[in-house]
Order: sequence, then C-alpha cells, then structure tokens
Amino acid sequence: MAQPSSATTPKVVDIHTHMYPPFYVDILSSRSTIPLVLNFPSSPNPRLILLEAEVPSLAGAESSATARPPGRPLTKHYSSLDQKIHFMDTHHIDISVISLANPWLDFLSPTESGPAAESVNAEFSSMCAAHPGRLYFFGALPLTAPLATVQAAVTRLTTLPYCRGVILGTSGLGKGLDDPALLPVLEALAAAGLTVFLHPHYGLPNEVWGPRAAAEYGHVLPLALGFPMETTIAVARMYLAGVFDAVPALRMILAHSGGTLPFLAGRIESCVRHDGQLVGEGKVAAGRRTVWDVLRSQVYLDAVIYSEVGLKAAIEASGGADRLMFGTDHPFFPPVGGSEGDEDGEWESVALNAEAVTKALGEGSEEATGVMGANAVRVLKLYGK
Amino acid sequence: MAQPSSATTPKVVDIHTHMYPPFYVDILSSRSTIPLVLNFPSSPNPRLILLEAEVPSLAGAESSATARPPGRPLTKHYSSLDQKIHFMDTHHIDISVISLANPWLDFLSPTESGPAAESVNAEFSSMCAAHPGRLYFFGALPLTAPLATVQAAVTRLTTLPYCRGVILGTSGLGKGLDDPALLPVLEALAAAGLTVFLHPHYGLPNEVWGPRAAAEYGHVLPLALGFPMETTIAVARMYLAGVFDAVPALRMILAHSGGTLPFLAGRIESCVRHDGQLVGEGKVAAGRRTVWDVLRSQVYLDAVIYSEVGLKAAIEASGGADRLMFGTDHPFFPPVGGSEGDEDGEWESVALNAEAVTKALGEGSEEATGVMGANAVRVLKLYGK
Repeated sequence: MAQPSSATTPKVVDIHTHMYPPFYVDILSSRSTIPLVLNFPSSPNPRLILLEAEVPSLAGAESSATARPPGRPLTKHYSSLDQKIHFMDTHHIDISVISLANPWLDFLSPTESGPAAESVNAEFSSMCAAHPGRLYFFGALPLTAPLATVQAAVTRLTTLPYCRGVILGTSGLGKGLDDPALLPVLEALAAAGLTVFLHPHYGLPNEVWGPRAAAEYGHVLPLALGFPMETTIAVARMYLAGVFDAVPALRMILAHSGGTLPFLAGRIESCVRHDGQLVGEGKVAAGRRTVWDVLRSQVYLDAVIYSEVGLKAAIEASGGADRLMFGTDHPFFPPVGGSEGDEDGEWESVALNAEAVTKALGEGSEEATGVMGANAVRVLKLYGK
Repeated sequence: MAQPSSATTPKVVDIHTHMYPPFYVDILSSRSTIPLVLNFPSSPNPRLILLEAEVPSLAGAESSATARPPGRPLTKHYSSLDQKIHFMDTHHIDISVISLANPWLDFLSPTESGPAAESVNAEFSSMCAAHPGRLYFFGALPLTAPLATVQAAVTRLTTLPYCRGVILGTSGLGKGLDDPALLPVLEALAAAGLTVFLHPHYGLPNEVWGPRAAAEYGHVLPLALGFPMETTIAVARMYLAGVFDAVPALRMILAHSGGTLPFLAGRIESCVRHDGQLVGEGKVAAGRRTVWDVLRSQVYLDAVIYSEVGLKAAIEASGGADRLMFGTDHPFFPPVGGSEGDEDGEWESVALNAEAVTKALGEGSEEATGVMGANAVRVLKLYGK
C-alpha cells in the first residue's frame, strides 16, 4: 500500500470503515434487547451484541459456545477517534469516509430517531473537522421517524461540510428498499448528490443456517453468507421494482463488493428474460435497462471481498476497475488469537483486501491506485470541505 | 458449439439436464399439495407447481398475477425421452447425464420413497439403454426412508450400468447436509465412486423476498437468488462441519457453478480465520484445509451461470477450467413469448451458457472443449456402460 499522503503519492482511501461514536454507545448500553452492549465478568471489554445469530440458542446451550460471552468485545477501536486515526496511520490510509455501523438508528422509536440522527451526524461532523482532509462521513438517517423528519435530515446533511452521503440498511422505512414510500427519500438523496452506501445488517432468518450453526460455527454463516446475500436481495428487489429507473440520479455504493451481485447478475438477467409473468406483462421490453446496465451506471462496489477471484468478478461486472473503492470494514474483523487489547498492529483483514487489489490489477497500476483511492476521491469529491 | 459426435470431434456433454419420467408425473398428478401437477382451463398444458413461491400469496391476490395459472406449463420437454433427444440434437449435445428434477423424492413418506427410488432409477436405466452412449444418469435416493433403505439404494445404483452418481437436494435426511446421520450415506456414495450432484430446491423463506415479490416479480427472486444461495449455504455448512475431511473420497458437482461459492470463498475463509470461537476452539489450526482447497480437490462446478463474469470466477476459484462442466438446466427456462408448444428450436438459455464458455476460454480452445464435454467424459467416465 502507498505511503501517507504527499503531493505526488496517490491517496489511499477507506470508504468502508465504521464507528460507534460515544453517544451511540450510550444508547446501546442503556438497552436490554439486541442490539445492546453488556458487561460480563469473564470479558475485559464490554460485549457488543448486534445480531440474534450471535447469541447461542437455547438448543445449543449445552455446547462449549456457552462458555464464551456472546457477541464481540467492544474495544476502543469502535468508538475512539484517536484509535481510528492510529488504525489509518498503521495501514497507510490517507482518508477515511467513516459511517455509523449497523444497525444504525433502525431500532429507535419514531420520536427518538430524529434527534439521534441529529446528534450522531453532528458528532461525525466534529470528528471530521478535527482532522480536516483526512476524514469525511456518510450520515445516518432517522428512518423510523415520519417521512418529513427523514427528509429534513437529508436537507440537514447537505449543510454538513464533510458529509458525502448516507449509510443505509436494507429495511428502508421497514418494508425494504423496493417500498414506494421510500422513493421520495431516495429522490431527495439523489437530488442532493448524496451517495447511498448500502450495507447489510439483518442477514437471513436463523433457520437457514441449520441446527448446528449456533453452537458450532461461530459467526461465520450469518457474516460470511447472510450479509452478502441480504445486500444482493435488496438490490435485486430495487432493480425489479424499477427504482433505478425511477431515480436515475441515484448513486449507490454496495458493501462487500455487491454481496453476490457480480456473480449472479447473469442468472438474474436470464431469469428475468425467461419469466413468463414478467414477459407477459411487457416488463422485458427491448431497450429496458439490464442488471448489467445498472451495475455500470448507478452502482459502485467497495473492494471488501477478501479474494482476487471475487475482486476480478466485481471489476468485470462493473465494466472496469473505475467503479471499485477500497475499504477495510474496520473495526470489524480484528486479529484474533492474541489478547483483546492486542489490535494496534497491522490487521490481516485489511491486508487480504489490499493484496486482492494488487493481485488483480498489478501493484501501482493506474487501475490499482484508482481502486485504492483515486476512484473514491473522484466519485465522492474528497477534497476541501 | 461442436457438431454431433464423431471419432475426431470433441464431445459436448450436458451434465445438468432434468427429467420427470412418466412414473414421477403420475405421483405429482395424484397430489393435492405442492409439489403437484394441476390442470387449469386457461392453460393448454397441465401446470407443474414446485415451489411455494410460485403460488401468489393471498396478500397479492388482487394483482394481475392471479390472472395467470400458477407454476409453469408441464410440456413434453419434462417427461418425453424423444423430446430430450430432440433437444440434444438441436443443440449439438452428444451426451446427457440426466437426473430427476427437484424436489426428487423428498416429499414421499418413509414407506413410499424406497419403491419410488427403485422405479425412477429403473426408468432412467431403461432410457439410457435405449440410447447407448448418448445417455447416462444421476440416480435418486429415498432419503425419507430408513437408513438401511437408503444404503440399499446406493448399493443398487452401483449395479445399474449407466448410473454415474446421485442427485441430492440440500435437506439430506431432513436436517441438512451437515447432519452426522448422513455421513454413512456420503461414505457409501464415495466408496462406490458415485458423484453427488448437489442441486437446490428449497430456496430461502419467502419473507426475504419482501411484500411485493409474489405479485410483481414473477419467479425471479427465488430462482435467481434463492437457488444459488441455498446451494452456497449447504456447502458452507458441510465445510464447517468437516464433512469433506471426514469423507475424503467424496466428489460433488455443485449446480449453478456453486451457487455463489466462487465469489464468496474469500469472505468465508476470512470469516473463519477471524472467528473468535472457531479460533479459540482450535478449529483454525495450521494445515487445515481451506474452502479453496476443497474447491480444488473434492468439488466440481457446472457451467450454468449465464455470464462470462460468473464463469471466469468459477474457473478461477476452481484453480482451472478442468473442474467445470457444461450444462443446460433443460427443461427449465424454455423460450418465452411464443406459444407453449413453440419450444422445439434453439433455446436462448442454452446459448447464454455456451457463449459464456466461448467468451471466457476462447472458441475451440482445449479448456473450452474441456468445459463443453471432455471434463465430464473424464470425471464421470462417460464411455461404455
């Protein structure tokens, strides 16, 4: 990876990097249902429990999994700005576009979420202002609040100098991203030039992982498969609902290289063309925009896919490397095996994704430097305020 | 694609091609719950209804979808051997390895499934014997029957000269393919040299498609996304349960190019390495076999992925083109737009997959002829009886 910024060295930009600012941790710590933060005597750090799948079910309670506290350690990496800057310096990252981590504000009541969004976005703004030129952010939306509150939040984000978009889960206003009621929000975001960073949280129903998963497979299945599958389903639903056509100015970055969209785009397209109902209803007319068209015009992908195979497919599905953007998914996937405080060095999870870029595109190539940072600088206008 | 067989022309082999033999159609026609075959006055052919997702929900009953009969037309392509041969000739396919289509015998009672497997496999044997050298088959197992019956069925398959393996869904004996109770069956198959063709049917719970899918999106989401996601989950569960290590002689062909496994292998591998529980339990020790190792030793992929992007990723994940095998998924995905009888010509769904091979590997290259047939001939020993 490139050295920290200078006038001549290409910038390294991390567009997939999360924080739970202190205000948000306070919210999680006050809760008694997931998502929440809990203290356990056996754990040096509080535990952050985000997913139902992270809590061993009663069915698996006799297994060894119950000897471990649930969730993951809430280390300083999650909420400390100094730690974020340290992480960036350690990995030679010049600029980070930080975002609230899942599940964002989706669990708050309609009256809570508006003020919470205001506070969180103000906190992110202050963080960026404390390190001008090194930090930008994707804001959070109060999606459980009335539509007027959501739209006011979008307007407010346009006044925050370091905001470059919003992070969005797949539930939208509660009925998914193909919900017609969400269209005014997407239109407002598109009109404001705010990019939507689509990120999973809800995964798939636990039953699909089978009876052994909760006790025996750690968090692997919901994280490795549930997350990317959720993203793919959300985008496919948007495509089938015509959202990309309805909001042509909408621009989205899909987390985890689009979930599985690059690999499945051909199958989606074939299933659309061969669907008796869609063909019969005239929805597969000549000139319609295919999944490939959307991937190559309105969608960007991060490069968080942990393999050369996946990254190459993401690049080819996107019609070129100029729609891909490096990310780390920090503070998730810290090194394991050492003690919980032993996370100040280089992270293998970061190296895996950086190495995939080098392997797929050649070290220092124009395409590689594009994915590592130049694409993000260009697309998200990461200069000045 | 190559011309029909001669001494010098490379063979074209279709390893993913289904039939519902007449005996099986009779079973489906006698049923009153899904899967079943039903007649509708508005449909020239009986309707084949395989998936719950193919029946519009009551919630969507006011939509235009209700004007169409549910499911798909059960044309002669599903059960006629003459039609299968005609399809092969039309598409210059020399050899087909036919298999019962989903949901196989999974819905039969413990007492029904044993005799049904016997009948279906005998029927497939007769079909192959009627066209020696052009047809082989993957047998069906009576998985709802007692274990001894299942094992006897495996033994019986080894005596059928044109049988080259079994087709298997993801439910196994009812608890998935990571069920320890299934191990003796997998061991018996491996010992007999019978390849397991893993095929999806159950998809994902309908709720993940959202409230608009049943009425508005045809069959696209369950087929385009549910099927490959189901396959991926099943294989990942087998991997995490150590099934590939426990049965080292097991060989599997994964339908639809592995679902999404080639794209997600890197993420699976990273999630395993970063899982505190798995690492703590010593399950991520040096020398363990990674997902990539399994993909390159025990797993083959069909080439039914409908895009050059997907096929290339499947090839790279497999460590080379010699583990990929062409397929058509006939009789599914017939041409649409014409009348139901208008399916005797070339099928676009076949062309999409054949073109992907040519684009990815070059027309007539050794790798392309391997994927189009030579790999299947070698791996499945498609010569003699």
